[in-house]
Amino acid sequence: MASLSNGQEASVDKPANCPFQLFNQEVVWNGKWIQTRQVGFRTQTGQQGVWQSVHRNTKPAEAPADGVSIIARVRKQDKLFIVLVKQYRIPCGKLCLEFPAGLIDAGETAQQAAIRELKEETGYACKKVVMESKLCFLDPGLTDDSQCLVVIDIDGDAPENLNPIQLLDSTESIEVLLVEQSKLMSYISELDSSSIVVESTLLAYAMGIQFATI
Amino acid sequence: MASLSNGQEASVDKPANCPFQLFNQEVVWNGKWIQTRQVGFRTQTGQQGVWQSVHRNTKPAEAPADGVSIIARVRKQDKLFIVLVKQYRIPCGKLCLEFPAGLIDAGETAQQAAIRELKEETGYACKKVVMESKLCFLDPGLTDDSQCLVVIDIDGDAPENLNPIQLLDSTESIEVLLVEQSKLMSYISELDSSSIVVESTLLAYAMGIQFATI
Repeated sequence: MASLSNGQEASVDKPANCPFQLFNQEVVWNGKWIQTRQVGFRTQTGQQGVWQSVHRNTKPAEAPADGVSIIARVRKQDKLFIVLVKQYRIPCGKLCLEFPAGLIDAGETAQQAAIRELKEETGYACKKVVMESKLCFLDPGLTDDSQCLVVIDIDGDAPENLNPIQLLDSTESIEVLLVEQSKLMSYISELDSSSIVVESTLLAYAMGIQFATI
Repeated sequence: MASLSNGQEASVDKPANCPFQLFNQEVVWNGKWIQTRQVGFRTQTGQQGVWQSVHRNTKPAEAPADGVSIIARVRKQDKLFIVLVKQYRIPCGKLCLEFPAGLIDAGETAQQAAIRELKEETGYACKKVVMESKLCFLDPGLTDDSQCLVVIDIDGDAPENLNPIQLLDSTESIEVLLVEQSKLMSYISELDSSSIVVESTLLAYAMGIQFATI
């Protein structure tokens, strides 16, 4: 994946559905966790440019996606709550409100990763996996970082979920909160943006709840 | 933002709400469009690690976020459709199904960027901005890339929207499609993942629609 130094283009085999000719693809920085790349592209009318992108180095070969996000629904005393986590995100320099989430380990399915991450990050035990989405891309103009969304139901009145205990690793610092699904959008709207920012997938889910019927 | 070469740590001022000590923050690669960074972090119990992240170089100083995604709702003959776009994404190596979206230009508000991008990418004219979200992070474990979600209503029976014409720049190749909001989740579920992958925000919105009442 190196460009040629003699000024000639190193062409790249055209991927399926790609409307561009690609050339001079190179890894410009390679770290332990992520890799930065750039590639030249040319349109059918001869316009050209360079696309720069970032890629995780951590995805196990057989994993269905890089990670999972978990839409965890707690039924408790006849109300429906969503489990959210609050944690400081170094890339953003802010506290971030998110669905519980994490990377898929080697040998895991998306559902197994979701059940494990839910237990580790929040302490809640899964009652039933309601749905597992296909792979989706988190920020496709910038990265191929991908996730599956897994919907999990939790019995909030079951003994093991009355006082859920997190199993965090030594570098994690995560606060867990429950918000009623019907109040998700108003809860997010009232956050003080100067101290906490919401993650996109959670916001879009809340907007789907809000705009389902209007 | 360079680390010291004599083995000493260069400490970083502790950001608000950050549970870690940060040190040796450096830009490890700096391109025209994006920048790759890493920083050391240490927990209160002395565990330490390195966080690698990517940052866009393109955000105008006053812009409310890096970009916008547009939830564009077309009312047409008493049905409610969502405007989607299909485009090849170089970082992902795949066709991607997404909300119309784009970066916010210098001097623009999120609403102005949304109305402009909607017109450029899809040809549709905005009737009314229904809602503008706060800033949210697209992939907070990896990047501070941010967006606002803007909900726009479109009168699909208005003359200017009967045959909408895109205003693409010379490097864009974007297909527009309308999907009924009530069928969004089933439409996404039936896509052939080997040729097209959905973007996270769109999938989460569709799941919100689906799970609003169950």
